[in-house]
Amino acid sequence: MINGEMTITRPLRWGMVGGGRTGQVGYKHRSGALRDGTYRLVCGAFDLDEARGRDFGVNLGVAAERCYADVQALIQGEAGRADGVEVVSVATPNFTHYEITKALLQAGIHVICEKPLFFSVTECEEIAALARDKGLIVGVTYGFTGHPLVHQMAAMVKKGLLGDIRLVDMAYTHGFNAGDDTGAGEAVKWRTNPRTAGPTFVLGDIGTHLYYLSEVVLPQLKVERLLCDRKAFIPTRAPLEDHATVLMHYDNGARGRLWVSSVDAGNMGSQRYRFVGTKASVSWSDAHPDQLHYEVQGEPGRVLHHGMPYLEEESLAADRMGALHTEGLGDSWANIYLWIAQAIDARQRGDEAFLASHHYPDIQAGLEGVRWLENCVRSADAGAAWVDFR
Amino acid sequence: MINGEMTITRPLRWGMVGGGRTGQVGYKHRSGALRDGTYRLVCGAFDLDEARGRDFGVNLGVAAERCYADVQALIQGEAGRADGVEVVSVATPNFTHYEITKALLQAGIHVICEKPLFFSVTECEEIAALARDKGLIVGVTYGFTGHPLVHQMAAMVKKGLLGDIRLVDMAYTHGFNAGDDTGAGEAVKWRTNPRTAGPTFVLGDIGTHLYYLSEVVLPQLKVERLLCDRKAFIPTRAPLEDHATVLMHYDNGARGRLWVSSVDAGNMGSQRYRFVGTKASVSWSDAHPDQLHYEVQGEPGRVLHHGMPYLEEESLAADRMGALHTEGLGDSWANIYLWIAQAIDARQRGDEAFLASHHYPDIQAGLEGVRWLENCVRSADAGAAWVDFR
Amino acid sequence: MINGEMTITRPLRWGMVGGGRTGQVGYKHRSGALRDGTYRLVCGAFDLDEARGRDFGVNLGVAAERCYADVQALIQGEAGRADGVEVVSVATPNFTHYEITKALLQAGIHVICEKPLFFSVTECEEIAALARDKGLIVGVTYGFTGHPLVHQMAAMVKKGLLGDIRLVDMAYTHGFNAGDDTGAGEAVKWRTNPRTAGPTFVLGDIGTHLYYLSEVVLPQLKVERLLCDRKAFIPTRAPLEDHATVLMHYDNGARGRLWVSSVDAGNMGSQRYRFVGTKASVSWSDAHPDQLHYEVQGEPGRVLHHGMPYLEEESLAADRMGALHTEGLGDSWANIYLWIAQAIDARQRGDEAFLASHHYPDIQAGLEGVRWLENCVRSADAGAAWVDFR
Amino acid sequence: MINGEMTITRPLRWGMVGGGRTGQVGYKHRSGALRDGTYRLVCGAFDLDEARGRDFGVNLGVAAERCYADVQALIQGEAGRADGVEVVSVATPNFTHYEITKALLQAGIHVICEKPLFFSVTECEEIAALARDKGLIVGVTYGFTGHPLVHQMAAMVKKGLLGDIRLVDMAYTHGFNAGDDTGAGEAVKWRTNPRTAGPTFVLGDIGTHLYYLSEVVLPQLKVERLLCDRKAFIPTRAPLEDHATVLMHYDNGARGRLWVSSVDAGNMGSQRYRFVGTKASVSWSDAHPDQLHYEVQGEPGRVLHHGMPYLEEESLAADRMGALHTEGLGDSWANIYLWIAQAIDARQRGDEAFLASHHYPDIQAGLEGVRWLENCVRSADAGAAWVDFR
Repeated sequence: MINGEMTITRPLRWGMVGGGRTGQVGYKHRSGALRDGTYRLVCGAFDLDEARGRDFGVNLGVAAERCYADVQALIQGEAGRADGVEVVSVATPNFTHYEITKALLQAGIHVICEKPLFFSVTECEEIAALARDKGLIVGVTYGFTGHPLVHQMAAMVKKGLLGDIRLVDMAYTHGFNAGDDTGAGEAVKWRTNPRTAGPTFVLGDIGTHLYYLSEVVLPQLKVERLLCDRKAFIPTRAPLEDHATVLMHYDNGARGRLWVSSVDAGNMGSQRYRFVGTKASVSWSDAHPDQLHYEVQGEPGRVLHHGMPYLEEESLAADRMGALHTEGLGDSWANIYLWIAQAIDARQRGDEAFLASHHYPDIQAGLEGVRWLENCVRSADAGAAWVDFR
Repeated sequence: MINGEMTITRPLRWGMVGGGRTGQVGYKHRSGALRDGTYRLVCGAFDLDEARGRDFGVNLGVAAERCYADVQALIQGEAGRADGVEVVSVATPNFTHYEITKALLQAGIHVICEKPLFFSVTECEEIAALARDKGLIVGVTYGFTGHPLVHQMAAMVKKGLLGDIRLVDMAYTHGFNAGDDTGAGEAVKWRTNPRTAGPTFVLGDIGTHLYYLSEVVLPQLKVERLLCDRKAFIPTRAPLEDHATVLMHYDNGARGRLWVSSVDAGNMGSQRYRFVGTKASVSWSDAHPDQLHYEVQGEPGRVLHHGMPYLEEESLAADRMGALHTEGLGDSWANIYLWIAQAIDARQRGDEAFLASHHYPDIQAGLEGVRWLENCVRSADAGAAWVDFR
Repeated sequence: MINGEMTITRPLRWGMVGGGRTGQVGYKHRSGALRDGTYRLVCGAFDLDEARGRDFGVNLGVAAERCYADVQALIQGEAGRADGVEVVSVATPNFTHYEITKALLQAGIHVICEKPLFFSVTECEEIAALARDKGLIVGVTYGFTGHPLVHQMAAMVKKGLLGDIRLVDMAYTHGFNAGDDTGAGEAVKWRTNPRTAGPTFVLGDIGTHLYYLSEVVLPQLKVERLLCDRKAFIPTRAPLEDHATVLMHYDNGARGRLWVSSVDAGNMGSQRYRFVGTKASVSWSDAHPDQLHYEVQGEPGRVLHHGMPYLEEESLAADRMGALHTEGLGDSWANIYLWIAQAIDARQRGDEAFLASHHYPDIQAGLEGVRWLENCVRSADAGAAWVDFR
Repeated sequence: MINGEMTITRPLRWGMVGGGRTGQVGYKHRSGALRDGTYRLVCGAFDLDEARGRDFGVNLGVAAERCYADVQALIQGEAGRADGVEVVSVATPNFTHYEITKALLQAGIHVICEKPLFFSVTECEEIAALARDKGLIVGVTYGFTGHPLVHQMAAMVKKGLLGDIRLVDMAYTHGFNAGDDTGAGEAVKWRTNPRTAGPTFVLGDIGTHLYYLSEVVLPQLKVERLLCDRKAFIPTRAPLEDHATVLMHYDNGARGRLWVSSVDAGNMGSQRYRFVGTKASVSWSDAHPDQLHYEVQGEPGRVLHHGMPYLEEESLAADRMGALHTEGLGDSWANIYLWIAQAIDARQRGDEAFLASHHYPDIQAGLEGVRWLENCVRSADAGAAWVDFR
């Protein structure tokens, strides 16, 4: 159980690019990072509007001179300081991830980047190589996988409690884009434009969360073939999609279904996961993250609660509030940030043994998400045809 | 609201083929038919084991001499009687539906048949023509569509409360066949053998319920193309399937997903339906048939309860228990049987005007189910390829 | 599992007093009684309006001459017939139960009566003695206790799975009388008038269901003291109550809470039961009667489903639809009627051994409900004071 | 919506007494306080074991010399510093609250104290007077009332959407103390001993949360009379209780029920609240804090979700994660800490106008909780008799 005690050598000097006052995602980064003193926010380029970004940064307790106009200024400004930034989070629109990450890594700064990571696997591989060369960590904010019961599912699968996996059923749908985009805000505008969003809208924006979580729970399963049927119900979003269904065939013979949509009018259920094996199944939703349904065929259904002693160690280790006390998305983000900090610290300490067995959403996880997106787009562009996963 | 008062001229003289002591479905027929005195059970060929069938029939109050060895004996025995049977329910394995129905119709007897109706559209068309020639009714026991809130959904769609339909999401999955079939009972054996089950297992056995209910709620939507990916996780069931996913493109541009499985270990949730339009969505499950979720994008979700005055007339007309008092599957079956009886009565009275606007699961509904199965199989056999619906 | 086969010697000749077209409860009696051919409706005095009652009865298939003006006419008319009525259900306002039941018993007719049975324990005892003298059965329609999972709870308690009972928490609240009674229908009018309803409104109308169900589940527990705080939020209902809370001390030291209300605006949850022992608890609601929550302290919660092989024999014996297929209130009433029929049949066969171990809501159950009401009223009238149960 | 921007003049220098490594509650304080940089942890007396406390404090980033042996040492040590502590949280067993709070206030330090505040109203009044004299703030960690939807309920009541309040139904029950206390940890031991816990166990430990939340939602309602029936199912806990039921009569005629228990075996539902008015009701549970059920009699039930634009401003102002993204108990605590910080800041700025309309759990809220406990105990000690609230 996490109690706020420092698990790394010392707090990391942390900065942000993006995540300013007008967006929602920045606060998730900050509340995750600052929760337990593992990171200290020392600088940022929070906003395209430099003055507004500086005002914002000062309000967050950042020195005015370390509130920069953009990432280049940040790199330059921090470069000369003994107390210069060590790790920077990138919470900007997709099309900027690659350049910003590259610049930061070249400057010797660890990076924590939003998903979908970049536009192509090629870009991911290039950056992965750069990070490796530089000895730097790149974390990806798949923010839902910090929930303790996600790791309970993974541990149960690993122990064989489900038997061989047969069915994977996942959905992340909402209706916030059910209407057209007249008058929509910036966050919608850039997400629905291929120049700024990359090759997908909802597949990248929310689908990658589903796919990564399934990798955490089912690390041994590999997609062999997939089919992606996508559509823009609001035509101005084409060629990007506001709805997509993906069918997946896994290498062990399992079958997967994945559904993402932002035109699912009225749906407030968020994500739903169901993993079914020969013996039993588990179901979980981030909307009620403290409950896990575990159903052995022919036995009464079971409802597991976070923080209870009957859970696996992996799940209890990620718990913050304790049984009966609700964990929220903020707790999950705090775990993600903590695990990335532990990776950076290990790297700084030269503790590669720790890193070898330490799990966090790393650049490979980001790359796999982009690879999945590329396969989805390839299938969709071929008329929702089956394609071999590559 | 239904209160047991006779809505037809007089009780119908009713018989059964199949539905004996060793199966489960027979009681659903009987409790549905006998609920309000609309039908009187006068004869039957309940069992392949004649003596056991007679003992059973007598226990149901049928005269021993009207408990027959098989449908031929029943037809002969009843033919000579002034009080001969008028309508017979067929609750036998799939492969016998066609012959039994044909024989009954040729003998001038109305038929109520289990789903999936027959093995092919050709058979369905032949029987439909025969029924038309003979002036007889053929009802199909899609037993879940008698629930009042199914008709609430249909009425809401018709009024335009959902806007244009975009998404159809349906599933009927359970885990009762998660293990192999060693030692399985008769009901499993015939369902997993193509000779006795026809060209499908779960698609026909449970998928047709989903498809028919969607036709009731969305009568104006037509499938244009579909893709069916099916699999037998228990290899002995091949070429039939214990899991199938169907993607559908509708003629108005809507997208549909349908999932059926009998290896969804631990799932007791039964059927789940979600119909999404441009404005709002409705969700319903037969597991909690008294609640309907109606969600207008951007407004609080709404939970509608059966029997409440705010519901549409079509829904209240099908209500039996009244608000706060739970309706079960038995009530739904009773409605299906009642609506079929009203059709038979209208035909007997020569009231074709009534029939023209009277809704019940008729032979066309049975035929459409079989047509859908044929398209699914065609797609699956082509390697889960998209096929034009025909 | 119930499959409609006759479990008694022959169908019982059955009649009704009350339960006509304008009320809701009559159909529950009829659909319960007629479900499986155990009863045949042969006569009735369905309505205060004789012509309307006759028209109604004829619509139910009763011969016009056996549709009587009132219970006296029914007794007289049936007395002379070889096929005269054997058992009559009383579905009239409370204040008539006693006189009608007495007249029927004196005429040698078994009775099935609505709850609350009579106005006083004294009346109950008198009628119990009369029934005993006459060798007749009096059943009481506590219609919710036919649900299979109620008997699962009883069996689990009996097996000791809960340990010693500590806590009993029950509620039956709705909001249908949240507004005043201006323009209310007959059913509300007589229920809120002490002359016609007796000494209570919601305590008798809905509270007796809670109390009887707790007796079924916890037969060994006896109330030692209770406190009842009641109130009429709509003043015209005073001295009767539309809200009451009852605290109970049981003889084993357990503590009970019971809440009834008809001004619980918006509540559609119907009844909620929770029985807690030293080891575990069970929770059940008639709103979702197919699920039972069983929670062992320190273990994952369990959800039991009706019709599953892991259930106790007592529960499976009461099942009609089978697992995955929803049971409703109609199924529960059908069980109650069946169990009463079995009692009448046993009495007719002189099988007192069967009767000694046969459980159904009998006159003693009706009497205990009235006794509980008397204690509640005594406490409430003393200013919501603790009273010894007597 | 809260985004981490500083809403006070500057971060507060903050310390803790108690809340060390061996307990659970300390982390809730720290993660609440440190979430947004509003507080900086500068010192503490975290543990009765001084060395362990120092080690722990250092792990939290506190300078070793500011990790004190006890509150007296803390006061002395901080007194001489220019950067001395300004506000201290008290997370120690109940019996120490009064002395520690008094000492801190006398030293000019603001206090944030656990509930139940002190042992008696007299003590509360004395401390309230002391705080007033010193111009210091005392906050009380009723940690569940930071949830946004609690304030939605309050705003809806204030707008009259429920009509006049009639019914208040609250429960906070769990089963973690269903077994006896052999081998129980320190947290259980001191809570079940009147010397260290004060006059109550579950009433103070969890019941005060219910009572305070009802005061937030229904500030205008006052209890006029109450009855408390309490019991120790585990006899060693007597005279303290592990179960209590409280009935309340409010001054407007409303009726209240409150149930607390720590022997409710298997219950993981935590808190349940239902407030019913003449027109409608609201229901909320901290177990699913993002949903609020709002039910207008005769209309479909409504489910409100946190963070949605249709909510009242008071609710949106307290939101951190935004719609679709789950808020947990940590977010609620962060709000409580923020609101207390805003009070301290206003006092430091001399902004009494702000303070006059600023809502947070203040010493009066703490006092009212203790007053309620005194009335409960008085009633229980009189044999669960009605007592006038005073």
